[in-house]
Formats: sequence, C-alpha cells, structure tokens
Amino acid sequence: MSNIEKVLLLGATGETGKDILAGLEEDGGFDISLLVQPSSANTPAVENFRSRGLKIVVADINGPVDDLATHVKGYTTIISAIGATQQLAQLNLADAIAAAGTCKRFVAGWITVSPPGEVMFLRDEKEKVYQRLWYHRIPYTIVDVGFWHQICFPPVPSGKLDYALVMPTTEVYGGGDVKNLLTDKRDIGRFVARIVKDERTLNQKVSCWGEELSQNEIIELVERKTGEKVDVTPISKEDLIARRQKAREAFRADPTSWNNAVGVYRDDYNLSKYIRGDSSRESARYLGYLDAQELYPDFNPIKLEDVLDEILDGKAVPVYQGRF
Amino acid sequence: MSNIEKVLLLGATGETGKDILAGLEEDGGFDISLLVQPSSANTPAVENFRSRGLKIVVADINGPVDDLATHVKGYTTIISAIGATQQLAQLNLADAIAAAGTCKRFVAGWITVSPPGEVMFLRDEKEKVYQRLWYHRIPYTIVDVGFWHQICFPPVPSGKLDYALVMPTTEVYGGGDVKNLLTDKRDIGRFVARIVKDERTLNQKVSCWGEELSQNEIIELVERKTGEKVDVTPISKEDLIARRQKAREAFRADPTSWNNAVGVYRDDYNLSKYIRGDSSRESARYLGYLDAQELYPDFNPIKLEDVLDEILDGKAVPVYQGRF
Repeated sequence: MSNIEKVLLLGATGETGKDILAGLEEDGGFDISLLVQPSSANTPAVENFRSRGLKIVVADINGPVDDLATHVKGYTTIISAIGATQQLAQLNLADAIAAAGTCKRFVAGWITVSPPGEVMFLRDEKEKVYQRLWYHRIPYTIVDVGFWHQICFPPVPSGKLDYALVMPTTEVYGGGDVKNLLTDKRDIGRFVARIVKDERTLNQKVSCWGEELSQNEIIELVERKTGEKVDVTPISKEDLIARRQKAREAFRADPTSWNNAVGVYRDDYNLSKYIRGDSSRESARYLGYLDAQELYPDFNPIKLEDVLDEILDGKAVPVYQGRF
Repeated sequence: MSNIEKVLLLGATGETGKDILAGLEEDGGFDISLLVQPSSANTPAVENFRSRGLKIVVADINGPVDDLATHVKGYTTIISAIGATQQLAQLNLADAIAAAGTCKRFVAGWITVSPPGEVMFLRDEKEKVYQRLWYHRIPYTIVDVGFWHQICFPPVPSGKLDYALVMPTTEVYGGGDVKNLLTDKRDIGRFVARIVKDERTLNQKVSCWGEELSQNEIIELVERKTGEKVDVTPISKEDLIARRQKAREAFRADPTSWNNAVGVYRDDYNLSKYIRGDSSRESARYLGYLDAQELYPDFNPIKLEDVLDEILDGKAVPVYQGRF
C-alpha cells in the first residue's frame, strides 16, 4: 500500500478514538475523515476537529443503509471506535460498508482479549458485529488491547495518585497473581497506524500490549514508586462472581442505565482478566491473535513505570474527564 | 508427538465417523477407543467394532459432567463426529473434557466452510460448542470439508448413476457458476490422521478439500463421463431463499422432526455454497482456515472423476444406506 489511505474514523471524541486519531496524525501517512453523528455535528469537540482542519462526515449510522452507504463510499480504511453502549449500531454500518463496496479494511475491537460466549457482555456484542463483517466478507482487522495503564493501578494513602485516577479501587481479585496485559492508551493509536498499513494483519485479530503484569506486581510497582503501602481489599473469586451476577440482573432490569452497563463491563473485565486470565499472552495465542510486539519488534511501548513517574511529576492527564 | 496418541472417537457409526475411523486405522499410528452411548452399546454396528478388537467406552454424553469426565480422562485426542441433530450435547462433553484435563486436542467440524451468524443453522450450533471449548481453553482443531463427492452430482436420464445417489436432484442454483470445494468422504479420515499429529493445526481451523468446482463444471464432467445430457432444473437465488425461509419455519414449528432438520440443512448448504460461495478457497482463506492441500502437498486427494468412474464400473458404495 504505497498510496495514502483514505481513513474514516468513528468515535474520535471517545477515549479510544482520540488516541487512534492522535496515532494516525502522528504517523502523518493518512488522509483522515471523522464520521460524526448528526446530534454531535456542532458540539465543541467536533468544532475543534474542524478548526484543526480535519474533514467531518456527518451521517446517521442508525439511518437507512443506502444513505449511510453514500457517506462511507470511497474510504478504504474504516476504523470504528464507537462507544461501548452503541456496539450494535455497527451492524447497520457493516451493511452500509458492504453496500458501498470500497472498504479494504474495517478495524474494530479495543477491549481486552477474551473468547466470545458469555465471558464478557461487551465481547459478545462485538462478536455479533464481527459475524456481520464475515457475513458480508468485509476485509477486517480486530485490534484488542491490554487494560489501560491509566486505570489499572490503586490509590495510595497519601492521595498523591488520586488526581489521575478514575474509579479508584484497592480491590485485588482471587489472590492477585493472574498475569494480565496492559497497554498505555497513547500507544493504541501508534499501534493502529502500523497495523492498518500491514498486509499481515488483514483478516486477523491483533493483541496490542506494553507489558504483562499481575495485580500483585502492579501493587509492588506502585509501592516501590510511591514509598507507600497500598491498603489492599481482597475479593474472592466467588464474591466477584456473585457481584457480577447482581450487576447482570440490574442491567437486564434496565439496560438503558449507563451505571448498570458500567457495572456489567467492570465485573466482566475483572473476572475475565484477573480470574480467568483471558487477557494474557498465552490466552491471546490460544485464541489466534497476532502479537503486536512480535509484529513490530522496534515499537517501544510505554511502561506502567513511566506512567507512574508522570503522575508523581504532576504531569498526567486523567482519562474519562467529567464522565464519572 | 512421537508417542502413540490415545484417541477417543465419537460417532464412529455415522457417515463422517466411519471415514475418520478408517483413516486412523489405515494410518496405524493411533490407539483408538470409540465412545458409544448406552443406548447403542449392543447394536450390531458396535458389536462389529468389538469383534474387530476396537475398544468401546460406553458413556452417556448427556449425563453428569463428573461421571462423563471419568470416561474421557486419559485420552489425549478426542474426535467428535456426533450426529448433526445432537451438536449441543457437545457442550456437556466439553465441560467433562475440561474437568478431566487430559485432552491435548479436541477435533470437530465436518461441514462446509461458512462464517457463524445465521448463514447455516448447523454452523451456529457448532459455534456454540466452539465457544465452550474456548471458554475452557481446551486445545482444539476444527476440520471442515468440502461437500462430499458422493452426494454432489445429478442423475442422468438412463438412471445408471442412480444406485449411488441419495437425495438425487438436477437442481442448479443461481446459474451454477459459483465455485465450491468438494471432498471425497474417504479422504476425510486420511486428512484427519495427518492433522491430529500436526502441531501447525493446533488451535486452528483447517479446510480439507480435493477440488473446487462449480455446479456447471460438475454437470459438464458428468455429461462427459456418461455421454448423457443432464436434465437441469434451474432454481433462482430468490426461490432458494424463499424455500429456505419455509424450511426454517417448519423446523421452528417442530424441531424434533428429522425431515424438518434435513430441510434446513439442505437449503442452508445450497444457499451457502452455491449462492454465497462460502465453501470456496477464497472464503476459507478469508475466514482464517489453514488449507490442507497446502499443509500436505504430497496428499493426493480422490477426484470426482475417479468417483464417477467407480460408479460407472458398478463399484460404488452408496452413503447413508437406509437413512433416506
């Protein structure tokens, strides 16, 4: 692929989408347009994109397939980082992409590695979308990532990490020794910029990660860096399963509640990565993922230690600002 | 794997299972046991296996997991060629295999290549089983095959092919030009004997095929071999879709009816392979299958031409004897 790829990115105002955009811009080798819902067409975030010279495509992804197809036509790489609660809108999008017929690679994913089939609700929603891609035989790449550095560590008693933390917790699940992949948010877009130009990743799943650490190893690092002791709250596997069951029941009772959705996501993630060990190198290999560190041995991912240094230097930018 | 593998085979009395058994026996490098349901423990077919010195394991695959686990324990390769209508019994089997913990490879599949997700009912049932394997992280290989030579060709007016035909039809779907993979039944077991000894196929899907022909090419070959003209009945894509819709409705109304199940299988197969082109080399590559002909370039698969010669020589053995 020597020509500049025409990229259409969905979800650029979201946490993953903005990292992808930054990675693509840093690379410089892409002709980027942003797909924006009509309801967001004039928000400050979108005006900001316009003022930076980014092309904005306003289209209703839940609208008629024929109409949506005219908006996605011509793009060769379509990257969807749509919000967690809107996954199934991608079914309609896939139909439109198939109708348009110009897409050479649809890119989606962005969660921790796990198998489909009642392990993670969010995974199963995504799997429905992947099945629709396969139905249409749309070329694709699924890019999954480790749990973000930015939200993987506990607070310390002095409170000096607190300004960088969302949903701070000192809970450690099932003993804390299960290894799990971590990825710095800012590396996601850098990985994506490589992946979408790489023929080896076409019609494949790719696992992007910076390091593989257990909860206990994360805590050890935090304690070493801060000189403080983390006040750990042990949670057994059984308690976590019971909590997840309750979260699922609440979500079933009212699936429109953002808090209920987040409850399910949170417990699913914790059970999958900290108890089952799905978000690990071994599991990714078993599930057929390509390993981004093997694909790009010269890529030097950000480490959790670097992130803790930034925070202690007062330079970290918290994620999900204003959302929690 | 230099040691002789302890193989447990399910479904050895079925059409695919008996081919697998023959392939494993021909290879000679396996210690084979057959898993048999209590209801079949003393059927003539099973007595015949016993008299040939094959080990029989009688176990209820729908029974309690702990009990079933004791029966599958110790086997390193477990091959399931369970009947089409009993696919979901493999969920319980997967739980038992996980509990036993000795299986190094579970092998299943045996249908034409297609994606999961409402293309083929049978594929979606199998996908539920695969998700259970992934849930337990059971090592596996999915072996899919082309449509069998033995049931892929039409009758000719003289009737000289009829003795070898089950469900004979002269229907040609959507113009008949879509390429589809064909596999001789007898090659399935020979492919399996290689695949289960091959580390490259672990945790992978493999497509086993002998040749890739369209319906029109099959007819051309039949006409050349017999010197007769096939009396083709063209069926449009739209008519096939409508017929499949009707078959699905009948099946939903009474899923216990064998005829209703066969109706769904038949129309799904025809739509998938002859209209969508799912059972093709290109589709298999897209869906991430390894190609058995690329893995085993010295394997010389039986061709449809050989099968037609056998039939015309009066030497063919019809499949599904007594079932239709």
